Amino acid sequence: MVCSLRAGANSVCGRGHAREGHTQEQRGALEVSRQSPIACWFSAMLYCFGGSVLSSLMLAEPPVGFLANSTNIFLASSIWYLVFYCPHDLVYRCFSFLPLRLMAAGMKEVTRTWKITAGIAHANSHFKNAWFVMVAVGWARGAGGGLISNVEQLVRGVWKPESNELLKMSYPVKVTLVGAVLFTLQHAQNLPIARHNLMFFYTTFLVVTKVTMMLTQSAISPFAPFEAVLGQMLFGWQQTPSKVKSEARVSSNGTSSGCDSAAGEASESIKKRQAKKTE
Amino acid sequence: MVCSLRAGANSVCGRGHAREGHTQEQRGALEVSRQSPIACWFSAMLYCFGGSVLSSLMLAEPPVGFLANSTNIFLASSIWYLVFYCPHDLVYRCFSFLPLRLMAAGMKEVTRTWKITAGIAHANSHFKNAWFVMVAVGWARGAGGGLISNVEQLVRGVWKPESNELLKMSYPVKVTLVGAVLFTLQHAQNLPIARHNLMFFYTTFLVVTKVTMMLTQSAISPFAPFEAVLGQMLFGWQQTPSKVKSEARVSSNGTSSGCDSAAGEASESIKKRQAKKTE
Amino acid sequence: MVCSLRAGANSVCGRGHAREGHTQEQRGALEVSRQSPIACWFSAMLYCFGGSVLSSLMLAEPPVGFLANSTNIFLASSIWYLVFYCPHDLVYRCFSFLPLRLMAAGMKEVTRTWKITAGIAHANSHFKNAWFVMVAVGWARGAGGGLISNVEQLVRGVWKPESNELLKMSYPVKVTLVGAVLFTLQHAQNLPIARHNLMFFYTTFLVVTKVTMMLTQSAISPFAPFEAVLGQMLFGWQQTPSKVKSEARVSSNGTSSGCDSAAGEASESIKKRQAKKTE
Repeated sequence: MVCSLRAGANSVCGRGHAREGHTQEQRGALEVSRQSPIACWFSAMLYCFGGSVLSSLMLAEPPVGFLANSTNIFLASSIWYLVFYCPHDLVYRCFSFLPLRLMAAGMKEVTRTWKITAGIAHANSHFKNAWFVMVAVGWARGAGGGLISNVEQLVRGVWKPESNELLKMSYPVKVTLVGAVLFTLQHAQNLPIARHNLMFFYTTFLVVTKVTMMLTQSAISPFAPFEAVLGQMLFGWQQTPSKVKSEARVSSNGTSSGCDSAAGEASESIKKRQAKKTE
Repeated sequence: MVCSLRAGANSVCGRGHAREGHTQEQRGALEVSRQSPIACWFSAMLYCFGGSVLSSLMLAEPPVGFLANSTNIFLASSIWYLVFYCPHDLVYRCFSFLPLRLMAAGMKEVTRTWKITAGIAHANSHFKNAWFVMVAVGWARGAGGGLISNVEQLVRGVWKPESNELLKMSYPVKVTLVGAVLFTLQHAQNLPIARHNLMFFYTTFLVVTKVTMMLTQSAISPFAPFEAVLGQMLFGWQQTPSKVKSEARVSSNGTSSGCDSAAGEASESIKKRQAKKTE
Repeated sequence: MVCSLRAGANSVCGRGHAREGHTQEQRGALEVSRQSPIACWFSAMLYCFGGSVLSSLMLAEPPVGFLANSTNIFLASSIWYLVFYCPHDLVYRCFSFLPLRLMAAGMKEVTRTWKITAGIAHANSHFKNAWFVMVAVGWARGAGGGLISNVEQLVRGVWKPESNELLKMSYPVKVTLVGAVLFTLQHAQNLPIARHNLMFFYTTFLVVTKVTMMLTQSAISPFAPFEAVLGQMLFGWQQTPSKVKSEARVSSNGTSSGCDSAAGEASESIKKRQAKKTE
């Protein structure tokens, strides 16, 4: 049940992501979905299971492992099919309805916490108490789809080497990194807090931030002030706060991991497409 | 013996492939073979053993495993050397002789069947009854050189992100996918046919189609009608049959896996090159 | 102790490398270090531990293994931090002092020998007596940072598909390949020389060549005459010696692995940067 919801949330978010790409005049997902359903399917699977693929590669386990769970794949595939090829675009229009989008985005954030802790436990079973490995694998598992976005774009024939998630981190990737560090510290018992409490607070923070960002259509990262202070202290950054904010807005719009755009933007993209169709 | 023939067929096809690239005004294999023999050799090895490398990566086995069979490598390397660096281009001219090309192409198709079934059996030994994994590994093993063509081109300094084998599948990659699905279904005993019979019919189909395509210089995929029907039913494609055919012709010319060009084209490329040399 | 020296040498060389890229009007390391410290750090780690990552991938071992040695990572990271973010650029200026550069470069070459022999022994433990695998893994371990330079550049947002280390080998990559072949032959007892003697002579050759090249600011590879003869015999090259030399100069300047530039160039780059800052 939970699994199916997750797959659904991910697939829908993936479509939103792809749609955004389309409105940004890339070689978008809709074009690809017409031209080559296999590339479209593979791109969607990379978006849904990217964390699993990336962490498998990092720990030298079979990256095709995610295909072994046939139920998950069937489910994600059927949602992918309905979202992309349903007559009159019915399913996608339903999911563009704001409350449904909020619910899907919330569920996606809940699974993020599970993924991070699972990644850290998995890394710990391979490398005992190797902190850096735990952070890296937890991060990769939690934010996989974002981190390999260059590869996922390449499958769709889009190649943007000048930007990647390490150069311009989007908010979901940043918050996953913070989570991976926190849970690793907790695992090493350097944090005076129990694991389930940390999971509860972190998940609440994730969901609240996400829903707020979607409702207010704001793209200002809650970390922006901390980043500015840290950057000034450690790396000698000298940015005016206004510049930081506008930068955050741009980067978050440009490389967001999909569910950030509020319904307004989505309906706009639908309108655009309908216009195209009727031409 | 069989191995040596295979390596030979592959190497020669690789040269043909590279040659085609040359005539298409890419940074061709001949230029690379003058500039950096090591990049040329590595590119040829990727073309010959791409399926093995790709399926190893997928199952987290050492991708350098193909180098462990020194006999194979020596053989493929010597054929590579003769095809590229023989004085007066004698060896390549021999292989450009139509009957020899037909024989090499036929042998390549025969080994394709073996590779697919070997890949499926290998995947089954890692993931018991995981259908998707079996199809993926069988496909990767059978059509590896094609699927990683972007990487193989990158070694030669060519980078074409806007096209890959998932976006525009060439005929060999398509037919390998169909084969991988068929053999997986047979493995799961969902097909009322014995394995050796299926292998026989599939191989015959492969060889006959290939030889026909080479002799008639046609690039119309035998799957085109099925694709059109399926596309219309599942994905709402609305293409006129003539458009499908012309598209098939273009894609097959553009990204074919090497042995498709008939002797006419090959001799043309030789003439071009001779002209260049004499300048 | 030795480890720390190695990490230091590597980091400093990495900075030198990055700097060079900057003066060549790429999207240089300094710009990246301001924009995204994480991308800068990851790029530096790939430069330092690239050999380990690449050989792990080749032998299907966890490529994050290098992160498991926390001491090494802390050390490399602190040197990375000091080199890039020290106030008034003090640390980098110290390392730009010629004798210090010479010492760091010398140490880097000494560790190269160890890396090659370790790689060969490691490959031999996986594939018994597979010569090609031993050469490949030894080469990857010794020259890893160079071989994956395309990936390392991609992290910094730079993408140059038209050149890679296989197409235009730099001198360090070439000499590592020669070393990998020699040590593999010695391992198979085809060379009438004891292992420690070979190590001694090879290391001496490496250090002497490197120091000479740095002192004379020359970029002529000591292998150029051999290459010309071999190329003429095996691959039918017809180059005039002068052309070979000028080519060597260009390729070595263009894609050198970092420590080759003498102090003159480095101080020049510092001047340029200071000029930029004051603007």
